[in-house]
Amino acid sequence: MTVNEKLRALRAAMRAHGVDACLVPSNDPHHSEYVADHWKARQWLTGFTGSAGVAVVTQDHAGLWTDSRYFLQAEDELQGSDFELHKQGIPHAPEHLDWLKDALPEGARIAVDGRLFSRAQLRSMRNKYAPKNIELVTDLDLISPFWTDRPPLPREPVFEHERRFTGLSRTEKMEQVRKDMGPADWYLLTTLDDIAWLFNLRGNDVKCNPVFYAYALLGKETAFLFVAPGKVPEELKQRLNAEGVILKPYDALEEHLRSLGPTVKVHLDPGTANVRACSALKEEQIVEGRNLVAQRKCIKNPTEIEHIRRAMVKDGVALTRLFMWLEKTLQERPVPEVEVAEKLIEFRSRQEHYFGESFDAIVGYGPNGAIVHYTARPETCAQIRPEGILLLDSGGQYLDGTTDITRTVALGTPSEEEKRAFTRVLKGHIALSEVIFPEKTTGTQLDAFARIFLWQDFKNYGHGTGHGVGFFLNVHEGPQGIATNPTTSRGRTPFRAGMLTSNEPGYYKAGAFGIRVENLVLCVEAGRGEDDSPFYRFETLTLFPIDTRLVEPTLLTPSERQWLDDYHREVFEKLSPHLEPQEREWLKAKCRPLEG
Amino acid sequence: MTVNEKLRALRAAMRAHGVDACLVPSNDPHHSEYVADHWKARQWLTGFTGSAGVAVVTQDHAGLWTDSRYFLQAEDELQGSDFELHKQGIPHAPEHLDWLKDALPEGARIAVDGRLFSRAQLRSMRNKYAPKNIELVTDLDLISPFWTDRPPLPREPVFEHERRFTGLSRTEKMEQVRKDMGPADWYLLTTLDDIAWLFNLRGNDVKCNPVFYAYALLGKETAFLFVAPGKVPEELKQRLNAEGVILKPYDALEEHLRSLGPTVKVHLDPGTANVRACSALKEEQIVEGRNLVAQRKCIKNPTEIEHIRRAMVKDGVALTRLFMWLEKTLQERPVPEVEVAEKLIEFRSRQEHYFGESFDAIVGYGPNGAIVHYTARPETCAQIRPEGILLLDSGGQYLDGTTDITRTVALGTPSEEEKRAFTRVLKGHIALSEVIFPEKTTGTQLDAFARIFLWQDFKNYGHGTGHGVGFFLNVHEGPQGIATNPTTSRGRTPFRAGMLTSNEPGYYKAGAFGIRVENLVLCVEAGRGEDDSPFYRFETLTLFPIDTRLVEPTLLTPSERQWLDDYHREVFEKLSPHLEPQEREWLKAKCRPLEG
Repeated sequence: MTVNEKLRALRAAMRAHGVDACLVPSNDPHHSEYVADHWKARQWLTGFTGSAGVAVVTQDHAGLWTDSRYFLQAEDELQGSDFELHKQGIPHAPEHLDWLKDALPEGARIAVDGRLFSRAQLRSMRNKYAPKNIELVTDLDLISPFWTDRPPLPREPVFEHERRFTGLSRTEKMEQVRKDMGPADWYLLTTLDDIAWLFNLRGNDVKCNPVFYAYALLGKETAFLFVAPGKVPEELKQRLNAEGVILKPYDALEEHLRSLGPTVKVHLDPGTANVRACSALKEEQIVEGRNLVAQRKCIKNPTEIEHIRRAMVKDGVALTRLFMWLEKTLQERPVPEVEVAEKLIEFRSRQEHYFGESFDAIVGYGPNGAIVHYTARPETCAQIRPEGILLLDSGGQYLDGTTDITRTVALGTPSEEEKRAFTRVLKGHIALSEVIFPEKTTGTQLDAFARIFLWQDFKNYGHGTGHGVGFFLNVHEGPQGIATNPTTSRGRTPFRAGMLTSNEPGYYKAGAFGIRVENLVLCVEAGRGEDDSPFYRFETLTLFPIDTRLVEPTLLTPSERQWLDDYHREVFEKLSPHLEPQEREWLKAKCRPLEG
Repeated sequence: MTVNEKLRALRAAMRAHGVDACLVPSNDPHHSEYVADHWKARQWLTGFTGSAGVAVVTQDHAGLWTDSRYFLQAEDELQGSDFELHKQGIPHAPEHLDWLKDALPEGARIAVDGRLFSRAQLRSMRNKYAPKNIELVTDLDLISPFWTDRPPLPREPVFEHERRFTGLSRTEKMEQVRKDMGPADWYLLTTLDDIAWLFNLRGNDVKCNPVFYAYALLGKETAFLFVAPGKVPEELKQRLNAEGVILKPYDALEEHLRSLGPTVKVHLDPGTANVRACSALKEEQIVEGRNLVAQRKCIKNPTEIEHIRRAMVKDGVALTRLFMWLEKTLQERPVPEVEVAEKLIEFRSRQEHYFGESFDAIVGYGPNGAIVHYTARPETCAQIRPEGILLLDSGGQYLDGTTDITRTVALGTPSEEEKRAFTRVLKGHIALSEVIFPEKTTGTQLDAFARIFLWQDFKNYGHGTGHGVGFFLNVHEGPQGIATNPTTSRGRTPFRAGMLTSNEPGYYKAGAFGIRVENLVLCVEAGRGEDDSPFYRFETLTLFPIDTRLVEPTLLTPSERQWLDDYHREVFEKLSPHLEPQEREWLKAKCRPLEG
């Protein structure tokens, strides 16, 4: 089917069901950032393959809303179809809802698949549309009937994430979360990484995220895990059973919820629980509350931290080998961007407990480095030569940790402009690495420390400064982060000891080059205030040299130089025992104290 | 009547009207920060005279909620009555609502005087209480019937704030605001400073705020001003009339609103418009929206800015005379804290266009300086001697501007601890004075620059770093500010050129001393980014030396020293032409470049 044929089929279905508009978002029923192909209805319908965007279809308009990262790609991919690109001013902002409010008449009906919208999203849409008496119809799936070649749900097996890695058994984790459940009898979990964490289980259903499609209900004594039959090996199933975790089919959730007694109370997070699941409960059964797993999962325990440190060593060793290989190969021939990503997987995969990449590596050479979410493709990608600047943002999934690191390296002699920009970015990175802050401090309060040096040059970068990172889980994990926007959880969550976050300021000169310096940092106690309340700081865990050829030493303060030299000393000390002599020599040169 | 007699009368009234609880807040119908005595029902009922707090009365409990600033005072003032102090964890947070939710049975009824709660407050209370079917009764005034000696509403005259000061005529201002009204026929104004600004009128109804009790309705061609008869002089009334502003009695608002046609639309800000006024409108007549005046009033126009600069010179001259007098007098005798405030009024009042103080000066000597909202009283205040530290926070109302300045001075030889703390505060103040930031940056993003140096010493301060300031209007003016909390308008409003804000980091050592360095700063364009978008910085407008005896020079960077020396050069250049020779000498010494 062409996109326009699909549009015609959708509009016919809309007419048949008496709805005036249909909203097709990018997500799955689990509020996931990355989704399995089965859930890529928006992509299938529109032809636009970017990860973020929403399609809005009425009888006389078909629109796709996406943000600036995807403007070029969307224009390209929508060509030849009736879909029109609407450029969002603010990423993830629901600007299409206002458009739709203006476009529709009083009393109109909009189809929104209840599986793909959270309870809070629906509530906010209802509030917005109430003055115009616009109805939201949540129980229609208009697309499936004509999406005949829809990919099935993944059938990858679920496996145990061993206690030696997780530090806590699932029984211990369940006991912890039960303490937070208050008067609720059950806690409904719909988010995949939270389910994986709680039960110490992992899967391979979603690219780069070691999660599996499931729902869970945690009770005071027992728990139900809703997962497709056949995904959990028999032996694991019995172990789960013995530990009070009863398996049910993935699609049995709603029936199970409907069978709960009328006075039974179910705690759920309205920000993520989907409308379909919620509507299997009576309103008086619902207790709205926080995500009880996320607030524990984000605090890494001592065992996890110990493992993460080891994973960082392995990742640093793999990157050492990659950059050595790149330097050597560039003396012989140009290297396509995609080959760097492939080679990186090869080096990482030789490390113990490697499971896969934590996201598709961003290999941005020259001007491509300035495209923040650049994806190199074999046919079109740039050929790297021994000149200019290369930005490499990548991460690995190891059973003992998830990594995420960006390095920007000079392949030739950098210009003054490049050095100044790099050094300004680095100063921001160092400032965040050195900041000391009291409890209750949020990411929004800290974000500007990473930007101020760029601001002084009337420069900035268009992304957040940091995101939470999982432990052999999603590389983007809530709730904390370092973001400019205080309305996001990343902006407004107070830091606590044990939180793992990225520190990744950047600078992007369109058509020229991109710079980003990213390490993962752990929030640790720095001291105590006068009332004995804790103050925190960030300890850098990532281990790989920062390219000093890009540093303009005169722009650094003595204490910034000290930080850089100390960091390089630590990198060398921790990585060198795991390297071959030649590699060690290479790393030693990269970790030399700053000159000039 | 004693407090307990009042309580008995209130409880009898509650029984008579069948309500289970009564909520008595501190505000007036205009969402004012400072209110006339007529509206101080909470104070009259409880005996607690602090500015912030709410009383909650049920048949078996009488509670007063206030925040840490007032714990001691409230404990003291509530003694002997049945009112119990509830200590709020977070200032202004509605913690009493949760208490009440737990305390009351299903289906209970709470009396909340609809004049004293905004539409948004009521909505949020209704949402909170809906699950328990608790009803909010908004049309009862239970207290007036037995508050027999209730002070009348102020009868002070309203006067013109001349165009030579305001830069724009009221006709011009009305035209501007009309542009923002969209499809609404009328814009209902209930906030006193916005009404004063829009009509270029001022009054004297509220201490320190040159406002008058009124409501206003701005239409597309005309406007209604609801103000008590007799307050507006005849000649001014005629001028207003000629300019399309029709006067109506203060208490005629509701009747007027009820008389509007059913299709007439009224724009109002649910955050401030009181429930009583709103309930005179039909729901379909209401268009909820932003405060349209506040968003213009906060951008000072070039005429206002020119005047503010002049007011700063006058204020600096008055402070020069005050501190000279204090130094001299301390050589002869101790000076009571209250005398400093009186003397300051005397010096300010000799300046042209002086109207009054913009708030009651905080004169905190030694340990009193550590009490953030300290009020010196004649009977109990400290005697200032030539030793220790004095904190003086004060401001003036001039027809050509509103000032707010805090200086902390050493009266003897400061200790190393005091110098280190002062210098850390000063470094934060300078950091904010030097920060350059892009458009869309909010106060929450900048706040930490003022704190980081204290944080490095595991110290902090418990108040915001800055608030907006009016132009011959309220010293606390919305929406912008520099606050840690992004949920407040002060935290989340982006800075724009023309905004006037305080920069006032501090440090308070309980029982020992208090430090604060406060200047008013104007947001100005600093340059343009690569996409031509503006970057801003803060220009300091306040003119008075910072006490260098409290500065530890070795803790300053060269650029911080430069800032301080430059500031002192500017202070001397701008103030000295207006000083007597002896005063000039005094100031010159205070403005000397930093030594050591």
